[in-house]
Amino acid sequence: MNSEVNIGFLIYPNVTPLDAIGPAQMLSAVPNSRVHMIWKDLRPIPTDIGITLNPTTTLSECPDLDVLCVPGGFGQKALMDDQVVLDFLKRQGEQAQYVTSVCSGSLLLGAAGLLNGYQSACHWALIDELRSFGAEPVSSRVVRDRNRLSGGGVTAGVDFGLTLVAELVGEEFAKLVQLSTEYDPEPPFDAGSPSKAPPELVEKVQRRFAEMWGSS
Amino acid sequence: MNSEVNIGFLIYPNVTPLDAIGPAQMLSAVPNSRVHMIWKDLRPIPTDIGITLNPTTTLSECPDLDVLCVPGGFGQKALMDDQVVLDFLKRQGEQAQYVTSVCSGSLLLGAAGLLNGYQSACHWALIDELRSFGAEPVSSRVVRDRNRLSGGGVTAGVDFGLTLVAELVGEEFAKLVQLSTEYDPEPPFDAGSPSKAPPELVEKVQRRFAEMWGSS
Repeated sequence: MNSEVNIGFLIYPNVTPLDAIGPAQMLSAVPNSRVHMIWKDLRPIPTDIGITLNPTTTLSECPDLDVLCVPGGFGQKALMDDQVVLDFLKRQGEQAQYVTSVCSGSLLLGAAGLLNGYQSACHWALIDELRSFGAEPVSSRVVRDRNRLSGGGVTAGVDFGLTLVAELVGEEFAKLVQLSTEYDPEPPFDAGSPSKAPPELVEKVQRRFAEMWGSS
Repeated sequence: MNSEVNIGFLIYPNVTPLDAIGPAQMLSAVPNSRVHMIWKDLRPIPTDIGITLNPTTTLSECPDLDVLCVPGGFGQKALMDDQVVLDFLKRQGEQAQYVTSVCSGSLLLGAAGLLNGYQSACHWALIDELRSFGAEPVSSRVVRDRNRLSGGGVTAGVDFGLTLVAELVGEEFAKLVQLSTEYDPEPPFDAGSPSKAPPELVEKVQRRFAEMWGSS
């Protein structure tokens, strides 16, 4: 690894900002790290919560990344056959120390051929889609297979981020980051996974995601 | 409440982006909601992780907010006697349905006189500072006192956000949001609060926060 640790998130129209900002907040604590937000150009990018995010670099100017991360979002669907984006992921994915994703971001890694024969996490409602890319879906919050590290849906990015901080710097440092960000979660309800939520809610979310993703 | 639910986050140089984006991601699901990022002008704002956030409106042009939220960050320290910012918070705080904060954001609400006689949460390492504003520090992840709702440090913004979604729309809907964002946390370590982390880490974080905040 270089003395500078380059951590890059691909962002794109209709990305889910928490998928990127959750882990970015954790990973920005890594000594000598630099967080990049990467897209085709530097114009502000609309997200799925009505605010914009600014790319810090472009696909062509991005330095070699130590950590490549693809956050999720329905906007990804439009990128599944975008050769410029897929080529970027392939190029960076071949040389990065860690090839990573949060939520449905693993599907785009899959489309770039980077998960063939790997286990991966994904948002629970889209996880079966991983099979079409030769990946093995694993329903865990954070999944590691060799240098692939993936988080489940949206908020799993925080658990994923802390796990990766520990990989890069060590457990002691990751605990320091956990304490600094007071990550001692207390969800007000216990409906955060399909095994815990009421079946009618599970069905509702499943249906909405299938519609948005265009899967059957 | 208007038919449009206006949810506004004050952002400022050196804000902690996860403090705002965590709850914003949850609250953006509220039907007819609009998420505002508010600052003095519309130029991109540097954050504490090296990326920028874009204001969507200004202090003077911001509509009356249903939810006023101040996220934390050391950049706040420079605002503690900024009359333009304090006047904005006072004006909005007097009419908003909910006056809220994440992490050290409660200190700026305090400086604006909005927490006098109220219980409030804050980042654990700065929570005692609340007393100087007449507020009563409460070491809980989410604290409610009348229409004041506050979250603890950084990642507490997600628990805070879901709690507020339940207030605004109802528990069933909040559970739907929890399931959609797969908020079923599994921190890889158990060091997220001063009662759980090793004492030497607690001291280290406490010292750093005191230095950054300029408190003794």
